[in-house]
Amino acid sequence: MTIISEDEELVTFINVFTVSPDNQQRLIDLLDRATDLAVRHANGFVSAALHRSLDGTKVTMYAQWQSMEAYQAMRGDPAATPYLIEALAIATFEPGAYSVARTFAPLAANR
Amino acid sequence: MTIISEDEELVTFINVFTVSPDNQQRLIDLLDRATDLAVRHANGFVSAALHRSLDGTKVTMYAQWQSMEAYQAMRGDPAATPYLIEALAIATFEPGAYSVARTFAPLAANR
Repeated sequence: MTIISEDEELVTFINVFTVSPDNQQRLIDLLDRATDLAVRHANGFVSAALHRSLDGTKVTMYAQWQSMEAYQAMRGDPAATPYLIEALAIATFEPGAYSVARTFAPLAANR
Repeated sequence: MTIISEDEELVTFINVFTVSPDNQQRLIDLLDRATDLAVRHANGFVSAALHRSLDGTKVTMYAQWQSMEAYQAMRGDPAATPYLIEALAIATFEPGAYSVARTFAPLAANR
């Protein structure tokens, strides 16, 4: 479970992979394995959520880290490398590092 | 606060806006106003979180809705339109509609 809050001092990565629909499930499996077997073991990892686009053309990873330094240290971890090389052979990758500017709740009347 | 869980039956929108760094704050203000004054009032809105990229070139809205139909009904709401027209005059927009495939927690040893 991931909690997005403007009060937390975290670095958020929203990494969008673009893929052909016939490779979407394979890409999800590769990113799942990389995250499960390597990324989530790293120091400074807070949480991640893998998203499947409804049209089949994208897979987006939303991930929270305690710091940019912790994320960059993980990127050098060879345990994740084979999965990520395979993922980048079938997808293009648009990375983004963010802070949370604001969160919005519904009006109570609509709950 | 937004909670990402693979157990919820929601539609997730991850909309990435690309902008020049000198317009990033203005874009954040416009999307903030559209969401605060209009979008979060709509039926079926669950939560949203606005993200500011650390390099200044992106603003990403992560939003959860109860259904695609509810989201599309909101898109016709004229209250948000002036802010969104102004936002799209200074930014390009890559929309994405998703379901949550999987969430990942850190190993307990690293908490």
